[in-house]
Amino acid sequence: VWHQSDLLAPGESSGLVADCEPDTLLHLAWHVAASGVENFEWARASLELLDAFRDNGGRRCVFAGSCAEYDWHAAQPLTERAPRRPATPYGIAKDALARLFAGSCEATGLSGVWARIFFVYGPGEAPNRLVPATVRSLLAGEPALTSHGRQLRDYLHVGDLAEALAAVIASDLTGAVNLGSGNAVPLRTIIGTVARQLDGEHLVRLGAIEARADEAAEVRADVTRLANEVGWRPRHDLESGIAETIAWWRRETGA
Amino acid sequence: VWHQSDLLAPGESSGLVADCEPDTLLHLAWHVAASGVENFEWARASLELLDAFRDNGGRRCVFAGSCAEYDWHAAQPLTERAPRRPATPYGIAKDALARLFAGSCEATGLSGVWARIFFVYGPGEAPNRLVPATVRSLLAGEPALTSHGRQLRDYLHVGDLAEALAAVIASDLTGAVNLGSGNAVPLRTIIGTVARQLDGEHLVRLGAIEARADEAAEVRADVTRLANEVGWRPRHDLESGIAETIAWWRRETGA
Repeated sequence: VWHQSDLLAPGESSGLVADCEPDTLLHLAWHVAASGVENFEWARASLELLDAFRDNGGRRCVFAGSCAEYDWHAAQPLTERAPRRPATPYGIAKDALARLFAGSCEATGLSGVWARIFFVYGPGEAPNRLVPATVRSLLAGEPALTSHGRQLRDYLHVGDLAEALAAVIASDLTGAVNLGSGNAVPLRTIIGTVARQLDGEHLVRLGAIEARADEAAEVRADVTRLANEVGWRPRHDLESGIAETIAWWRRETGA
Repeated sequence: VWHQSDLLAPGESSGLVADCEPDTLLHLAWHVAASGVENFEWARASLELLDAFRDNGGRRCVFAGSCAEYDWHAAQPLTERAPRRPATPYGIAKDALARLFAGSCEATGLSGVWARIFFVYGPGEAPNRLVPATVRSLLAGEPALTSHGRQLRDYLHVGDLAEALAAVIASDLTGAVNLGSGNAVPLRTIIGTVARQLDGEHLVRLGAIEARADEAAEVRADVTRLANEVGWRPRHDLESGIAETIAWWRRETGA
């Protein structure tokens, strides 16, 4: 059964939840850009949804947090107890909401998980992000301009992320948990995999875009909780995940 | 013009603000106990009010924060940049809301002040708090049981706090500001002043209640911003403020 609601309209999600009385809630809705007041409006909307869920008999909920809550210059890999120092409005809003979510769950006994999602790629990603932008450039036979690509990042295939979220909901875990692979690969490896599969290595311009001076060398999840308490590990490898993503973009763009 | 609204009911404050279109907002409403889920519900309600205020032409707002956001074991006096480590649901909710408030104001250009209120006493205070409890016990001729009373706390008379809030609204200051006296007095001095004015010194039992092991020795506001950027200083002294408070409780209780 599908229901539609504008979560940002005050009172609407409360009304929907009062009608549905869900016992389980996976809340992924948010604004997609790192800046903008929408991040704070989504924090407000998320709290209304949380309160309505609890007040209408809700029992188990998983809310989407982000690795953007952490201090990316802290020691790697980042455990759930790593220092938090968000650098963007997105990260600030997620971090503050995490604090309210944890306090609210603790005060009421609601079984809640704050799932800190690291980097994600795969079919359906916004076109301006690293993998789609590279795929689209090379499919069009155009140069792909990137930074130096030595940054290490912890990427999950979106299908793995969906399975991880389902596994977390089904588990007894509560509190914050990192959703990542536990491995960090250089962005140039991801770019290179796309280029090799598309025979477009000659079009890749590593270093054409200057990296920010304060860019973190590595952002990697410590996945001890996910592996030990949920018992989940990713299934996709980068080679097949990128192949699937390229196939999706071929269908999407007709290239 | 007075309007009445249940700020906790999703959609109600948005409707009120859309009707009134206020240009200035002083938001003091909250739950009065340090624990309980109500603190997180008030964070949610405060965000709805903030978003509605901004979306309906609001220009200048002051929200009530708290010294409970700070790490009370940090170096004293506490500046607005002192480390934050709230120890109660009240402090956690206020601290997280402060982060969302600051981010939201910054993202939209809304002129906002987060006023961190320290300790307050005076007429109308909840009866179980230190000054009212002491006054009521001594007015009744009963022993006043207190802790050792050596804790240093920064108290403002409620009339001073009201004037400080009015001065802050009328100023150009934005961001976080401490509202306190800048001085910390031992609780035993406050208790002793009440007792002396009521000729009840023989009824005071300092040390009858054990202080918590982790209780902070001193909590004092650095009021540099308030003094220099707002130009405000308290007018009441403890002697006359306590006298006024005792007179209020005499009227209230008929003692």
